[in-house]
Amino acid sequence: MSSPTPADRAKPAPPPRAERRGFASDNHAGIHPEVLRAIAAANEAYAGSYGDDSWTAAAEALFRSHLGESARAHFVFNGSAANVLALDCVCRQGARAVICAESSHLHQDEAGAPERIAGLKLLVRPTPDGRLTPGDVARSDDKRGDVHYAQPGAVSITQSTELGTVYSPGEIRAIAAAAHERGMCLHLDGARLANAAASLGVSLREITTDAGVDVVSFGGTKNGLLLGEAVVFLTPELGDGFPVLRKAGMQLASKMRFVSAQFEALLGEGDLWLVGAEHANRMATRLAEAVAPIEGVELAHPVEANGVFARLERAAIERLHAELGEHAFYIWDSDRDEVRWMCSWDTTPEDVDRFAERVAAAVGAR
Amino acid sequence: MSSPTPADRAKPAPPPRAERRGFASDNHAGIHPEVLRAIAAANEAYAGSYGDDSWTAAAEALFRSHLGESARAHFVFNGSAANVLALDCVCRQGARAVICAESSHLHQDEAGAPERIAGLKLLVRPTPDGRLTPGDVARSDDKRGDVHYAQPGAVSITQSTELGTVYSPGEIRAIAAAAHERGMCLHLDGARLANAAASLGVSLREITTDAGVDVVSFGGTKNGLLLGEAVVFLTPELGDGFPVLRKAGMQLASKMRFVSAQFEALLGEGDLWLVGAEHANRMATRLAEAVAPIEGVELAHPVEANGVFARLERAAIERLHAELGEHAFYIWDSDRDEVRWMCSWDTTPEDVDRFAERVAAAVGAR
Amino acid sequence: MSSPTPADRAKPAPPPRAERRGFASDNHAGIHPEVLRAIAAANEAYAGSYGDDSWTAAAEALFRSHLGESARAHFVFNGSAANVLALDCVCRQGARAVICAESSHLHQDEAGAPERIAGLKLLVRPTPDGRLTPGDVARSDDKRGDVHYAQPGAVSITQSTELGTVYSPGEIRAIAAAAHERGMCLHLDGARLANAAASLGVSLREITTDAGVDVVSFGGTKNGLLLGEAVVFLTPELGDGFPVLRKAGMQLASKMRFVSAQFEALLGEGDLWLVGAEHANRMATRLAEAVAPIEGVELAHPVEANGVFARLERAAIERLHAELGEHAFYIWDSDRDEVRWMCSWDTTPEDVDRFAERVAAAVGAR
Amino acid sequence: MSSPTPADRAKPAPPPRAERRGFASDNHAGIHPEVLRAIAAANEAYAGSYGDDSWTAAAEALFRSHLGESARAHFVFNGSAANVLALDCVCRQGARAVICAESSHLHQDEAGAPERIAGLKLLVRPTPDGRLTPGDVARSDDKRGDVHYAQPGAVSITQSTELGTVYSPGEIRAIAAAAHERGMCLHLDGARLANAAASLGVSLREITTDAGVDVVSFGGTKNGLLLGEAVVFLTPELGDGFPVLRKAGMQLASKMRFVSAQFEALLGEGDLWLVGAEHANRMATRLAEAVAPIEGVELAHPVEANGVFARLERAAIERLHAELGEHAFYIWDSDRDEVRWMCSWDTTPEDVDRFAERVAAAVGAR
Repeated sequence: MSSPTPADRAKPAPPPRAERRGFASDNHAGIHPEVLRAIAAANEAYAGSYGDDSWTAAAEALFRSHLGESARAHFVFNGSAANVLALDCVCRQGARAVICAESSHLHQDEAGAPERIAGLKLLVRPTPDGRLTPGDVARSDDKRGDVHYAQPGAVSITQSTELGTVYSPGEIRAIAAAAHERGMCLHLDGARLANAAASLGVSLREITTDAGVDVVSFGGTKNGLLLGEAVVFLTPELGDGFPVLRKAGMQLASKMRFVSAQFEALLGEGDLWLVGAEHANRMATRLAEAVAPIEGVELAHPVEANGVFARLERAAIERLHAELGEHAFYIWDSDRDEVRWMCSWDTTPEDVDRFAERVAAAVGAR
Repeated sequence: MSSPTPADRAKPAPPPRAERRGFASDNHAGIHPEVLRAIAAANEAYAGSYGDDSWTAAAEALFRSHLGESARAHFVFNGSAANVLALDCVCRQGARAVICAESSHLHQDEAGAPERIAGLKLLVRPTPDGRLTPGDVARSDDKRGDVHYAQPGAVSITQSTELGTVYSPGEIRAIAAAAHERGMCLHLDGARLANAAASLGVSLREITTDAGVDVVSFGGTKNGLLLGEAVVFLTPELGDGFPVLRKAGMQLASKMRFVSAQFEALLGEGDLWLVGAEHANRMATRLAEAVAPIEGVELAHPVEANGVFARLERAAIERLHAELGEHAFYIWDSDRDEVRWMCSWDTTPEDVDRFAERVAAAVGAR
Repeated sequence: MSSPTPADRAKPAPPPRAERRGFASDNHAGIHPEVLRAIAAANEAYAGSYGDDSWTAAAEALFRSHLGESARAHFVFNGSAANVLALDCVCRQGARAVICAESSHLHQDEAGAPERIAGLKLLVRPTPDGRLTPGDVARSDDKRGDVHYAQPGAVSITQSTELGTVYSPGEIRAIAAAAHERGMCLHLDGARLANAAASLGVSLREITTDAGVDVVSFGGTKNGLLLGEAVVFLTPELGDGFPVLRKAGMQLASKMRFVSAQFEALLGEGDLWLVGAEHANRMATRLAEAVAPIEGVELAHPVEANGVFARLERAAIERLHAELGEHAFYIWDSDRDEVRWMCSWDTTPEDVDRFAERVAAAVGAR
Repeated sequence: MSSPTPADRAKPAPPPRAERRGFASDNHAGIHPEVLRAIAAANEAYAGSYGDDSWTAAAEALFRSHLGESARAHFVFNGSAANVLALDCVCRQGARAVICAESSHLHQDEAGAPERIAGLKLLVRPTPDGRLTPGDVARSDDKRGDVHYAQPGAVSITQSTELGTVYSPGEIRAIAAAAHERGMCLHLDGARLANAAASLGVSLREITTDAGVDVVSFGGTKNGLLLGEAVVFLTPELGDGFPVLRKAGMQLASKMRFVSAQFEALLGEGDLWLVGAEHANRMATRLAEAVAPIEGVELAHPVEANGVFARLERAAIERLHAELGEHAFYIWDSDRDEVRWMCSWDTTPEDVDRFAERVAAAVGAR
C-alpha cells in the first residue's frame, strides 16, 4: 500500500482500535452477540433476495405479534430512511407538511432529507422537553385549507424523545386524537421506542397501536443490531405504497435475510429488545443518581430513558474532554453548557461509576 | 405468536429455510466466511460512529491502494444508492441528464430512483450487448446548449454489463474521451467490476482510473458481502459534495465500521474480491460450455463474466421452473424466451454440472 | 443608460423590432386582438386574486360547456407546467412512470422538468409519426407489479402530435381502453388540441371526454393568447389535489383574471379557438400543396394540422436561412435534413405564397 | 351553456364584476395603463420566442442601468418562482438550507414550494418586525460543518418586509457581511423592493448591489404589471445555471416579449416603478395617520412602506367585514386580532378617507 497523500496527512488519524467505551451515543456500541449469531445462522444457505425469504416472513410475523395483527413491517437500512419514507408514504398529495418538535431528529439531524428526498415541509414547534402537545397540533388551525400555506398531513413525535423524556400512553392518545380529527396521521419516531416501553413498563403495543399511532419507525441499530430499522404501518392501508417508495428510495436490501434475521433475534423469545433497553435505562438512572448530588452538575431533564442531560461549567466539560477524549460524550447545547450522556445495552455499572468519578473530579477541580 | 390473518393466508408461504442453491442471482448467495469473520472481529470494542473509526480509514486506504492515490471512497448501503448519489453528485446544475444503455440497471431496475431522488433524466440508448459506444455519447450533439433539451452531464456505463459482457480498457478510454470532450463525466456502475477485472486479467485501476472513469459504484454485495457498496471518486474534486449528499440521501450508516470492515476483508491481503470473481466467472464459463452443445439451447451473448444468457423453448423453461422452482433462475426477456443464469463466488462445479444436466433433460423432453 | 459590457458586445444583437413574420413556431405570432381587448376589459376594476374572480368562474364554466359538466379547469402559465403538474397529480405513489412518444414535447422539450419537478420517469416509445398505439401501452406488461421497475401510472399522448399528425377519436378510445384496463390514466397534451378538432371536424369533447381522456393540457398560447394554458380534469376526482400542486408548483397567478379573461375570449361565443385553428390548418395545407410539387421537396408526414414537415437538400436549407434569417423556420432533424414550417392563427395566404416561392427558388438554385 | 352542477351550486358565487376597491392586497389592483399600452405596442409584429426578442434585451439592459453593469436579469411568471428558483440556483450541493424570517413569504405563503421543488430546508427565525439581524445568521454557527445538520447556503431577507417595515442600507450590509463570511449568499425577496427604495429615498442599487445582495427577486406584479417578476443576479457567476433551472422549473415564457415589455414600461424613462411605489406608500401613511388617533385602533408596526398593520377589537373587525365584504382586507393574525391594510399604485385618497371613516365607525359602534 502506498504512502499517505497530503490530504491524508492533514486529516487527524482516527483513534486506535483500542477500547473506546464512553457515553457519546448508543450507536458507538457494537452488535449484541445473539444478533451476530443470528446473522451467522442465516448464512447457512441460499435465499431469495429482496425479502423473499423465511427470515423476513418470520420477522414480519414477530412485529404482528408485538404490535397487533394489523401491523405491516418493512425493513430499511437506517433511521433517516425510516422517518423520511414513512412520512413520504402517509402524507398525501395535498398535505405535505409535518408538525414536529424543534428538538426532533427529523429537524435537527437528517440533514434536510425530509425536504430533499420527500419534498416535505417541517412545521417546527418549540418544546420544553422534546414532547409535543395537542396544542402544538392545533397551532396551524387558522391556516387550514389555505392553499398558500403548506398543509400538515402528519404529526411526528419521538418516543423516547431526543431529550431522554417519555410520553405516557395517554399523552400519545391525546396527540393522536388531535391529529386524526384534523385528517392528519400520527407518526412515531421510535429509534428508542424500546427504552420508552421499558421505562413505562408497558408493551410496545400500548404506546403505539393502542394509542392511535398510524406508523412507527422502529429502531434496531441503537439497541444492538449491526444495522436495521423497521417502518411499521399500524393503519395498514396507509402503507400500500411503501414497497415502491422503499425501492425507489434506495432502501431495499438485496440480501434482506441478514437484516430480518437480526430483528428475529431482537423481537423473538428472549425479548432481547426489552432486556437491552431495560439495562440501558438502568445504567442511565445509575449515572443520574451518581452525578445529581455533585455540586456543579445540574440535570437538565428528567431521566426517563437511557440518556442523561446535564449542565456543568464549560471548564469542567473541557477537562473531561481533555482527559477522556472528545468521543467520550457530546456537548448537546453549547450555549447552555449542556452535555448528553447516553447509555447502551452494553454499558456496565463499572463504566458508569468510573465516569461519574471523573465528572466529580472535573467539576471539583476548579 | 398469533394465527395468520386472511392476508397472510392469501400470500404463498415462503420456501423453507432449506437448500435453495440456484442461478437466479449472485445476491442469493450468502456472506463469505472471511467477511463474516471481519464483522465479528470489528465487534470487539466501542467505535466512533458515521465513519469516524479505524476500519473505515483502513478500507478507504485500500481503495487508494487499488485505484490510485486520488481515489476517494465513501460507503453506502446498496447499489441503487451508489448509482443515484454518485450521479447526483457529478451532474451539475445545468446538465442533469445521464446517457446510459437501455439495458442498464439504472434504467431497468432502480424503480425510477434516479428521477425521483435526484431529478435526473436518463437518455437511454439501445445496444446489442449492453455496451455503449462513443457514438452513443455523440447522439445528443445537435441539442447541445439547447435550453429546452435536458443537457447530459454524465455518461454511465456498466462493467461487466447486465448482459454478462465486458468493456475492454480501450473501449472505456474511448467513451471517457467522448464524454470529457463534451464536458460530461464518466460514471461506471461496477456492481460486478471485480468480474470484469478478473475476466480481462487486469487490475481494477486499469479499467477505471487509468481509463478515464471519474466515479465508480464499486459493488460488494454481489461478491460476498452482507451488504455494502462504495462510491469512489477518481476525479476527487467531483466528490466534494458527496458526504452531505450521502447523509441527506439517507445512506450514512451509524455503525459504519461493520460495512467498512467487510471491504477491508474484500480488498485486503487475500484479494478476496478477485478470488471470488474469478471463481464465479469460471463457473459461468463451465456452465456455458456445458449447455452450448445442447441442441435447443442458444447462447444469447458471449459469456465474459459470471452470467450466462441463453434462449430455449418456452416449454423447456417451464419444465425447468416446475422441477427446480421459480427461484432457480429468472426469465430475462419473455418475448425472446431468454433466461439468465448467474454464478456466484460460492457456486460449485457440482451445482453447475447438475444444473446443466437438468437443462439438457428439459430441452430434450419435447 | 450605460454602455454595453464586453459580455453584451459578444452576444449578437437581437433582430430589429421590424417585421419578422415566418414559419418557425406558432408562438412567434402575437396576441389575437380580441384576446387583448378581453385583457383590457378585465382591467376596469379591482378583483379578488388567485382565481377568486368572476372571469375565472366564467372561463371554468366555458370549459364545462365544451368538455362536459364533469370538466374541472385550472389555469397555469405555460405548457411545461400544464403537462408536468397534470401528470404529477394523476400518477399515484406507486406508479410514477409515464408512457409517451419519443417525439413528445414531454421528452424532448421540457428540459427534464417531469423528472426534476415531479420525479416522474418517462418510458419512451419510438413512433413513425408521433402517435402511440395500444401496443405501446402494453409493452411494459411483463414488468407489471415488479417493484424494481418503474410502474407506469399514466399514458401521455399529444393531439395534434409534434409531427403535425392527428389521432382519430377511435384511436384515442383504443389507447384509453389499453391504459384504463391496466389502471393507468390517459393524459392528453393539447397544446394544439384546437388544430386537431378543426382538422377532424369534431367537437373538443369528442376527442377528449368522450374518448376516455382523463386529463387534458389545453393550450392557449399557441392559439392567440398572451400566455395561458389550462389543466382540465375530465375524471374530476383525479384532480382533487391539483390546487395545492399548482400553488406548490409555482403556477398560481395572483392576478389570475388576466389569464382567465383570455380563455373567456378564446372559448366564448365567437369560437375564436376554432376560427384560429381552422385558419392555421388551412394555411398549412396551402403551404403543403404549394411545395409538394416542387422537385427536391419531400413531405415527411401527412399534413393534418398546422405544421408542415419537409425534407430538402441541406444546401437549399442553408440558402433559405441565409436569405430569410435563421428565425424563419427551424431544422427539425438535422440528420435527415428535415425542416418544420408552422402556421399560426395570423399567417396570411401572402405569407405562404411568398415563402413557397422562396423554397422553390432555393431548391432550384442548385 | 349548460346548467350548474351540484358542486357549482354548493360553491358561493364570486362577487360581481363591479367595483371591489379595497385594502386586501396590492395584487387586487389591475394593470397600470402604461403597462397595458406597452403590451399592446409589443403586439405589432412577429418576434422570437423564449426571450430572443428586442423587448427582453431592452428590459435586461434597464436592469443593468438600475442595478449596475453586473446585473443579470431573467424573467419569470410569479414571485414564488422567483424566490424558489433564485435560491435553488445559489445554494450549492452541500448547503441546501436557507435562513429566513418566520414571517417570510418563503415560509408562510409558498405552500412548501422551496422544499418540494428545490429540496431546500428553511431555517426559520422569529423576528419582532420581519427583519433578520446578523445574529440570526450566526445562530447556526455551532452546527457548521456538521454533516447531520442541514447546512445553510443562503440567507433570504424581504424588503420591504411582510410587516411593512424597511431595512436600512446599513442593516442589509451587515447581514450581507454576516452571510458572506460564512460562505452563504444573500438573497433579497423584493416583491415590494420599489416601496422600500421609495420609502428610504434611495436608488434600487443602494439597497441591493451596493449593500452586498447577491440575487434579487424583483417584483412587478404588485406594482402594476399584469404579471411578471425578475430574478436578478448581482453576483453574476452565481446565475450561470439559471437559464436551465428556469426552463426545467417550468417558468420560461414562450411569448416572453409580453413580460419583458412590461418591465420596459416599469423601469424606463417615466420611472413608473417609483411613481407607483411612492404613491402607494403615501396612501399607507395617509391611512395610518387617519386611523392612529382613533381610540380602539393600535398600529402593530411602524408604517414604512405600503402596508398598515393594526389591532382592533374582534367585533369591530367583524362589523367592517360585514359592511365591506370579506375581500376588503385580511385578518393577518387572528390570535392577536391584527389586520392588514395594503395600499396600491392606484389607491386613491378618497379610498383611504372613506375606509378610515368606516374603521372609526366600526370601532366606535360598540
